[in-house]
Amino acid sequence: MFLAKITGNLTATQKVDSMVGQTLFIVEPLRVDEQSQDSLKSTGRTFIAVDTVGAGEGEVVLIVQGSSARFTDETKMLPIDCAIIGIIDTVQIGTKSIYRSN
Amino acid sequence: MFLAKITGNLTATQKVDSMVGQTLFIVEPLRVDEQSQDSLKSTGRTFIAVDTVGAGEGEVVLIVQGSSARFTDETKMLPIDCAIIGIIDTVQIGTKSIYRSN
Amino acid sequence: MFLAKITGNLTATQKVDSMVGQTLFIVEPLRVDEQSQDSLKSTGRTFIAVDTVGAGEGEVVLIVQGSSARFTDETKMLPIDCAIIGIIDTVQIGTKSIYRSN
Amino acid sequence: MFLAKITGNLTATQKVDSMVGQTLFIVEPLRVDEQSQDSLKSTGRTFIAVDTVGAGEGEVVLIVQGSSARFTDETKMLPIDCAIIGIIDTVQIGTKSIYRSN
Amino acid sequence: MFLAKITGNLTATQKVDSMVGQTLFIVEPLRVDEQSQDSLKSTGRTFIAVDTVGAGEGEVVLIVQGSSARFTDETKMLPIDCAIIGIIDTVQIGTKSIYRSN
Repeated sequence: MFLAKITGNLTATQKVDSMVGQTLFIVEPLRVDEQSQDSLKSTGRTFIAVDTVGAGEGEVVLIVQGSSARFTDETKMLPIDCAIIGIIDTVQIGTKSIYRSN
Repeated sequence: MFLAKITGNLTATQKVDSMVGQTLFIVEPLRVDEQSQDSLKSTGRTFIAVDTVGAGEGEVVLIVQGSSARFTDETKMLPIDCAIIGIIDTVQIGTKSIYRSN
Repeated sequence: MFLAKITGNLTATQKVDSMVGQTLFIVEPLRVDEQSQDSLKSTGRTFIAVDTVGAGEGEVVLIVQGSSARFTDETKMLPIDCAIIGIIDTVQIGTKSIYRSN
Repeated sequence: MFLAKITGNLTATQKVDSMVGQTLFIVEPLRVDEQSQDSLKSTGRTFIAVDTVGAGEGEVVLIVQGSSARFTDETKMLPIDCAIIGIIDTVQIGTKSIYRSN
Repeated sequence: MFLAKITGNLTATQKVDSMVGQTLFIVEPLRVDEQSQDSLKSTGRTFIAVDTVGAGEGEVVLIVQGSSARFTDETKMLPIDCAIIGIIDTVQIGTKSIYRSN
């Protein structure tokens, strides 16, 4: 899994039937700053993920990829490879807190 | 999943039997511009995807990868790892619209 | 899926039993030239793929990766993650033909 | 699989039900130093992994990705794509020991 | 699949039960030299693979990744995503032999 920030959303009227009603977010994967180890920074990539936990824009979330994205009650049988499975409260590296949700 | 622009197509007379009749598009994955956050730009990569929604060249589409590409009525049992599952109407980052289909 | 050029082959006497008799090719993934959009160029990577369509060296082929590489009659149950499922005749970007097999 | 160092942890109150009670670690994938071949160094990436073996921060662990992360008694049916399946005692390259746990 | 050189090994006393007795090797993925096309060179990456064919350090081997790594008699049901399924004897690019095992 990886951490990501929800940065936006999208609409797609024409889509696979099973995807009707699913919330799709634009997410930006994050990594721990390699040098300072004291903050999360963007990787510059862009993924589209299905929300399963009621997350919202601006939040940092936990993302699962691949076939395992189908292993939740909400996503069973969906043609998806990326799902939001948690909303992050805190991230700690060693003894230092590097992220805390508002 | 990720966003991509359909840029072309290909033909392959000699192929696995189950692929006969499938529409194959050349797609260019997109990402949100890392600096400006106000447009979609190319990643420079090239994927081949099966269409399941009647998409066309020039459109921005939603792509699913891996085993989940087989989780649509049209693609069940196909030897494919990449499918188009939606046609994008709008993309919004924060309060700004960064893409709108024509 | 992606496009690749078959550049060579390999031999491996000692191998998993189910792989005996399978044709293994060395393939070089290709992408559409990002700037000119008028040719296919190498990505510099090297994959090993099982042939299911009678392809030969020098040809440009369609490659499927992951579990879906097992979704052909020839590859069911094989321990493989990469298969050749088509031989490319033509590739077109917009209105321009950028590849044609000999 | 790959080697990684456990560098931190995170909390997520709001999450998929099946993930309640799972230990999530922040891990930093490692590689053998390409030039010297005598130490493990960071790849600069950040993954989130479920622990199945009682590992702790600072330890170097063995990580499995993808659907196989669900093939342990503890992780069956979880929506995860990354699990810790062993704690590394020693790593040897050729005749040289390049890592030993304390 | 890809080619890799076995460069070392590791020990892990504490691990998932099903992994007891499995041989784990450190492998370095290889690619064909992009310019000269006449040798195999390292990609600088490091993977951990389960051996299924009696391979040894220094050998160049064939590696399968993902769920397909479980499709051998030795690895069925193991939580692994990377297995050695063959020992390479020769690699040929066009008409030139670029690798031969000793």
